[in-house]
Amino acid sequence: MTTAQDRAKILVEALPYIKKFYGKTIVVKYGGHAMLSQDLKEAVFTDMVLMKYVGMHPVIVHGGGPDITAMLQRIGKRSHFVGGLRVTDRETMEIAEMVLIGKINKEIVAQINRIGGRAVGLSGQDDGLFEAVKKYRIVRTPEGAEELADIGFVGDISKVNPEIVTAIIERGCIPVVSPVAVGAGGESYNINADHAAGRLAAALGSDKLIILTDVEGIMADRSDPSSLISSIRADEIALLIEKGVIDGGMIPKVECCLDALASGVQTTHILDGRVPHSILLEVFTDKGIGTMVEK
Amino acid sequence: MTTAQDRAKILVEALPYIKKFYGKTIVVKYGGHAMLSQDLKEAVFTDMVLMKYVGMHPVIVHGGGPDITAMLQRIGKRSHFVGGLRVTDRETMEIAEMVLIGKINKEIVAQINRIGGRAVGLSGQDDGLFEAVKKYRIVRTPEGAEELADIGFVGDISKVNPEIVTAIIERGCIPVVSPVAVGAGGESYNINADHAAGRLAAALGSDKLIILTDVEGIMADRSDPSSLISSIRADEIALLIEKGVIDGGMIPKVECCLDALASGVQTTHILDGRVPHSILLEVFTDKGIGTMVEK
Amino acid sequence: MTTAQDRAKILVEALPYIKKFYGKTIVVKYGGHAMLSQDLKEAVFTDMVLMKYVGMHPVIVHGGGPDITAMLQRIGKRSHFVGGLRVTDRETMEIAEMVLIGKINKEIVAQINRIGGRAVGLSGQDDGLFEAVKKYRIVRTPEGAEELADIGFVGDISKVNPEIVTAIIERGCIPVVSPVAVGAGGESYNINADHAAGRLAAALGSDKLIILTDVEGIMADRSDPSSLISSIRADEIALLIEKGVIDGGMIPKVECCLDALASGVQTTHILDGRVPHSILLEVFTDKGIGTMVEK
Amino acid sequence: MTTAQDRAKILVEALPYIKKFYGKTIVVKYGGHAMLSQDLKEAVFTDMVLMKYVGMHPVIVHGGGPDITAMLQRIGKRSHFVGGLRVTDRETMEIAEMVLIGKINKEIVAQINRIGGRAVGLSGQDDGLFEAVKKYRIVRTPEGAEELADIGFVGDISKVNPEIVTAIIERGCIPVVSPVAVGAGGESYNINADHAAGRLAAALGSDKLIILTDVEGIMADRSDPSSLISSIRADEIALLIEKGVIDGGMIPKVECCLDALASGVQTTHILDGRVPHSILLEVFTDKGIGTMVEK
Amino acid sequence: MTTAQDRAKILVEALPYIKKFYGKTIVVKYGGHAMLSQDLKEAVFTDMVLMKYVGMHPVIVHGGGPDITAMLQRIGKRSHFVGGLRVTDRETMEIAEMVLIGKINKEIVAQINRIGGRAVGLSGQDDGLFEAVKKYRIVRTPEGAEELADIGFVGDISKVNPEIVTAIIERGCIPVVSPVAVGAGGESYNINADHAAGRLAAALGSDKLIILTDVEGIMADRSDPSSLISSIRADEIALLIEKGVIDGGMIPKVECCLDALASGVQTTHILDGRVPHSILLEVFTDKGIGTMVEK
Amino acid sequence: MTTAQDRAKILVEALPYIKKFYGKTIVVKYGGHAMLSQDLKEAVFTDMVLMKYVGMHPVIVHGGGPDITAMLQRIGKRSHFVGGLRVTDRETMEIAEMVLIGKINKEIVAQINRIGGRAVGLSGQDDGLFEAVKKYRIVRTPEGAEELADIGFVGDISKVNPEIVTAIIERGCIPVVSPVAVGAGGESYNINADHAAGRLAAALGSDKLIILTDVEGIMADRSDPSSLISSIRADEIALLIEKGVIDGGMIPKVECCLDALASGVQTTHILDGRVPHSILLEVFTDKGIGTMVEK
Repeated sequence: MTTAQDRAKILVEALPYIKKFYGKTIVVKYGGHAMLSQDLKEAVFTDMVLMKYVGMHPVIVHGGGPDITAMLQRIGKRSHFVGGLRVTDRETMEIAEMVLIGKINKEIVAQINRIGGRAVGLSGQDDGLFEAVKKYRIVRTPEGAEELADIGFVGDISKVNPEIVTAIIERGCIPVVSPVAVGAGGESYNINADHAAGRLAAALGSDKLIILTDVEGIMADRSDPSSLISSIRADEIALLIEKGVIDGGMIPKVECCLDALASGVQTTHILDGRVPHSILLEVFTDKGIGTMVEK
Repeated sequence: MTTAQDRAKILVEALPYIKKFYGKTIVVKYGGHAMLSQDLKEAVFTDMVLMKYVGMHPVIVHGGGPDITAMLQRIGKRSHFVGGLRVTDRETMEIAEMVLIGKINKEIVAQINRIGGRAVGLSGQDDGLFEAVKKYRIVRTPEGAEELADIGFVGDISKVNPEIVTAIIERGCIPVVSPVAVGAGGESYNINADHAAGRLAAALGSDKLIILTDVEGIMADRSDPSSLISSIRADEIALLIEKGVIDGGMIPKVECCLDALASGVQTTHILDGRVPHSILLEVFTDKGIGTMVEK
Repeated sequence: MTTAQDRAKILVEALPYIKKFYGKTIVVKYGGHAMLSQDLKEAVFTDMVLMKYVGMHPVIVHGGGPDITAMLQRIGKRSHFVGGLRVTDRETMEIAEMVLIGKINKEIVAQINRIGGRAVGLSGQDDGLFEAVKKYRIVRTPEGAEELADIGFVGDISKVNPEIVTAIIERGCIPVVSPVAVGAGGESYNINADHAAGRLAAALGSDKLIILTDVEGIMADRSDPSSLISSIRADEIALLIEKGVIDGGMIPKVECCLDALASGVQTTHILDGRVPHSILLEVFTDKGIGTMVEK
Repeated sequence: MTTAQDRAKILVEALPYIKKFYGKTIVVKYGGHAMLSQDLKEAVFTDMVLMKYVGMHPVIVHGGGPDITAMLQRIGKRSHFVGGLRVTDRETMEIAEMVLIGKINKEIVAQINRIGGRAVGLSGQDDGLFEAVKKYRIVRTPEGAEELADIGFVGDISKVNPEIVTAIIERGCIPVVSPVAVGAGGESYNINADHAAGRLAAALGSDKLIILTDVEGIMADRSDPSSLISSIRADEIALLIEKGVIDGGMIPKVECCLDALASGVQTTHILDGRVPHSILLEVFTDKGIGTMVEK
Repeated sequence: MTTAQDRAKILVEALPYIKKFYGKTIVVKYGGHAMLSQDLKEAVFTDMVLMKYVGMHPVIVHGGGPDITAMLQRIGKRSHFVGGLRVTDRETMEIAEMVLIGKINKEIVAQINRIGGRAVGLSGQDDGLFEAVKKYRIVRTPEGAEELADIGFVGDISKVNPEIVTAIIERGCIPVVSPVAVGAGGESYNINADHAAGRLAAALGSDKLIILTDVEGIMADRSDPSSLISSIRADEIALLIEKGVIDGGMIPKVECCLDALASGVQTTHILDGRVPHSILLEVFTDKGIGTMVEK
Repeated sequence: MTTAQDRAKILVEALPYIKKFYGKTIVVKYGGHAMLSQDLKEAVFTDMVLMKYVGMHPVIVHGGGPDITAMLQRIGKRSHFVGGLRVTDRETMEIAEMVLIGKINKEIVAQINRIGGRAVGLSGQDDGLFEAVKKYRIVRTPEGAEELADIGFVGDISKVNPEIVTAIIERGCIPVVSPVAVGAGGESYNINADHAAGRLAAALGSDKLIILTDVEGIMADRSDPSSLISSIRADEIALLIEKGVIDGGMIPKVECCLDALASGVQTTHILDGRVPHSILLEVFTDKGIGTMVEK
């Protein structure tokens, strides 16, 4: 049981961290398990609102793959695959936008507002926030040659116009951003949410990029929970990939971190979204939650 | 064929209208046929962008019934009816939000941006724009008594917090607003788009409310196209309803106009959305397009 | 021992209080034991800095009687007494100003700065912050008549010009104010610090006035520590004074609270300055620290 | 006859031009025939007001030679000539200022205001807008030597202080500027209006300089109306002068264009002021009116 | 001879007056002898610039009758008279405007700039500063009846739009205003300069109106220079007019003072423009220069 | 006796100086005899207030050695000396701060306010205005070696954070600054007031630094009052020191001037504080008061 003095002590211990991040922008990629459990959701959004009140500027970029898949099944949409990847045809993209912007984004906005924050939802179409170019996939033909396969409305961000995000921040609101971008002809593209978060963090000149994952962080030995790497320098990453310590789905996340660092973001973090209030613990304490990648 | 001098003449003739509405806010309820034809869409959004560039502040509130119905059919959702009205259960509301915010709103934003305007999408959840109370339907029991039937997540706007709309306007952008509101517990409610447009026009202190419909306006004799009533005073409406001149779906539209006028909007217009550029013709010329309802 | 999750929980529990007082001005009368112990000093100033960082606007008004007495002894200054009160002659006033402004105020400023806040010291002379009228003491002559005795440079605040305090607040600094006021002829007057804090809270439109004392608060029965009155309405005070429950040095403090409440301050608090972080506990938790006097 | 849809079409076709020049400053040298016919005046000022309302910043610099000559005749003032040029003695300069500032400028201001714009007149004396140095004329003596002849109060602009013009623009007004400048001793100098317009356009960082003339533009063959050169690059001008295609009064106008282009003005135009609304046609359409000189 | 200490003393003695009028607007009607002598001109404009530098906001409204008369003679213009008043026909008005705006106003602007101030000239046409209604003269017919005679373009101010004057003041410049106003149809009207100064002082909320005249002020006995009335209350004026103490050209001047006082101007002054620096002596000292009319 | 015209003349002659220093910051080191005589005090503060009203930004840095010495004697404090210098132990520093900030500073503030200015007192602790490093004294041991002697809380300014001074200036107030600085550990250091004034002048980008002294300025021959050097260039100083013309207490003052000049201050002045209004005479006239050191 914590006494009143314990409470005071803990609040006081948060002061150096509050000072450190005062007025700083912090982009959080929100995805994975933290989107599934109601308790974890509450914890994430409460952390956001708390950060906002103590003078930081949190920005959320959310994912949403499982919800899109569920909706596609619900309408009986069959997916085509190329080189192991689902092709995002026009109908799939339409469903993806509906789910991301019309469902997930608005649920987040609603929950933040309910907790007492003020959130505003945005997608990459709004004031041209994210501009994209179409992405192609290299596949191997039966004859063994490489060729570019069209995987539909999947894009890479070519330009970020962050003014609308800044305007929302300055109004005292928390921007909640869906990973959709706009092509040269006005068409929408699905973009990877980690990638969107990294690019937005860079464009905003953020201090910190936090990527919520479903693992504890980067582990030196994945079978040994005590081998979590708390902190690693950007230039040490290549070796770990080569050694296979970093592999699979962790590689693109780490690459987003490296990109963001190269564009001026101060520190990047791969956090365990399954731990309640992991963001708050990362920002307000010096407990080693997850892995920090820094320059 | 128009000569250069004709062109000059027409531009010059627009000047008095441009002066008249300079700096004024104009809320447009966008719905019906104008949402179906690509040419009519282009015309409506071009009118919006033109208005913005010549110093007016257009705001769009869109509808979307047919798209919601289509999506419900697509997922095989059966609707229950009470007193002739579809009950908006949680699943129906979820689909409605996805379609309104994730599909229709973003398509409008994308098209305005493509034409060269700068649009930002909003729903009633964003910064608490529309607050709602649940709406009930009075039904007659088999025994002949009246009772309130629960028709689910259908609401009436209880409060408008228009600051986020104003902020978007001041940034030089065109706000595009979905008719969704937020209840006391954070839940979303479907609201009638005419109603949303009227209430938003009132809250913004707009100069003009324009409701796009699929008819030419209010007709003294619906079988006679030449009987269009160009202009009518608010206090003459009651008699026309009594006489049956105004009936059916026109009644709620006219009521939105009366509400808006009572809250300070200067003039309200019921325009034929099937005529290309009907908004532009209404705003920039003195040609009688549709019916103006004024105090 | 508190775990990481305990820490998170306590921070999260502070959120409603942070929201409640966001952007609000809180005037703290700092005096008594809290000025003597280095640990208590640290705790008080840390609380101030924390409040500032989470969006509140703390203002300190300090006392300093014991230091003045010590300095007078040190220079061998004999005091004259009238009606039991020390007469503040010109020399005494000069010493009082030196000690209050040149010693106590600057020590507070220095310590707040050292903790990481930004403090600026002010006295009532600065930009005419406190204007005073001379105070007289009614004494009884040997013959039994009442007469006004001159007790020197002791004053009551006749006007507060709080603009300089507001300017300091808006610069992100914590104002530290000495209880000295300026008379019509430019001369300085010693003023009671509780009185100064109350009047300043009123002039600033503060949300809260906190008076640090050396008792636990108002006790229903001073021999019974469990009889602390947590909360009392302004209109119940008179009865308690009549009954003798409130007496002695507590009476002027309570009167400052009543004055401040009458001028629009929302709540006033008599806190035990001997408890570390009593201000923080009052502001950030709902633990009953001291006595709240409200309307 | 134009139908409503024609009108809509023409307004819509103006949109790209409105977008292109939104917020841009456009300096118009107003002179020649356009100053004589009441219809042409109306057309020019209406174009100005329309440009202002759709977000551009028009600035007028006017000429006035014929009116000055008329006034000199009226007072029976004999002019002296040196090397074929009228000497502007003190009395002539006084008359010139009266006519330019007290008559022509104020008539323009009055007419713009009457059309619904808001105009403010300025001369080069106001807040030191135009500073001048005295200009000399090289003449050949009877003995065949060259010498500098004093032609009185005729000057070249040595410095532009455009802040007052900018202030007038930012207030939503149209500045109307007389071609008078101030010498080092405070005396006034007559300056060429084309020259004043070009220098002001450069100092304001204008997007466009338009010089109204009494010819159709630069003609490849002046006897053939179809030989109008619509567009020409600055570096092609020298050759045309050498060939005699550009000669006489057109040379100084072309030189003003070259100077303005060299100082950062985007495009310059020599327009036929005898065509009603030639400015509007130039700015709002892509019809070839006159000659554009660009980098 | 003044010593350095004398100089210091005089500067220091100006301090209370500088404090008193800091940030205040002072309208000066400039006319009469002070417009004729170069020394007096220098003195008036130097006073203006000095006032501006020490934080006051002087505004000049100038007259110009003699110059207009001279110009009319120069062009051989015959004047018609009705009821003893010259009829201002269109040609006369044109000359009046040229002389007032193009000659006198610009000379004042030029001289102030030369002394080191920053002046900007304005007439009533600029941004619609003075609106006028036509003035008629009551004349007696040979038959003895009264009738309204048309005296041409002579007007009374019906409305003042002082925003452009305020804008010029806020830019740190001294506005110099010509007594010309604009009628409903855009035509110019000659207005009395005292009247213009009084109305402008009222519209600007000025602290002081100063009218420069060619007499010492109001004299109790015009044959006795020592009978100057230094100060008089508005309600005492009527009696003096009745007694004939105030008569002739002084009456309209006094009426301007009364009007200005009625509209909120604090004090009004009739000063002797023949005394060098009379304005400065009035504003910076308590020497009795001229007559003050106050409420 | 000065006549009204003399007064006008003197005021007018001040105009060029007012123009020259309009909006400029002028730092005045106030010390010596000017602190002792009530008449001289009045004169100095009146000069400050006058400067403020005519648009300059005076800043005062005061000394206070004699008052500190008096107070130390009063409490019977014995001073220790090292190498001829008094050691500023903790108790001495405490007394110094009390006297400087609590007595001298507040007396200045009070007097300026009484004259009609608005003053705010500051010390180097406020918002971290002056940061200091400890200063050591080189002394010679009995054995003839040199060693660093600890002379206590005496410091040199290592950094100036002038934002709080600028904020006070912009509020229309006159900053009055005590020569106390803050060390890395938050402790206070006594700093030389000339040094503080010079560094503050540099940090503020002041136009002028004025040091009040008790001599007439730099004399070529101190026995000959007529040998005052009115003006001297920075690069001529070294020679004068070498020659012994500048020696003793004048050397550190001259060094402050050289430092300030090197940091961008335009001119520096060593004035005779015994002459009433010497500052005013220096600023508002071209009489040779004291010695100007310039680049």
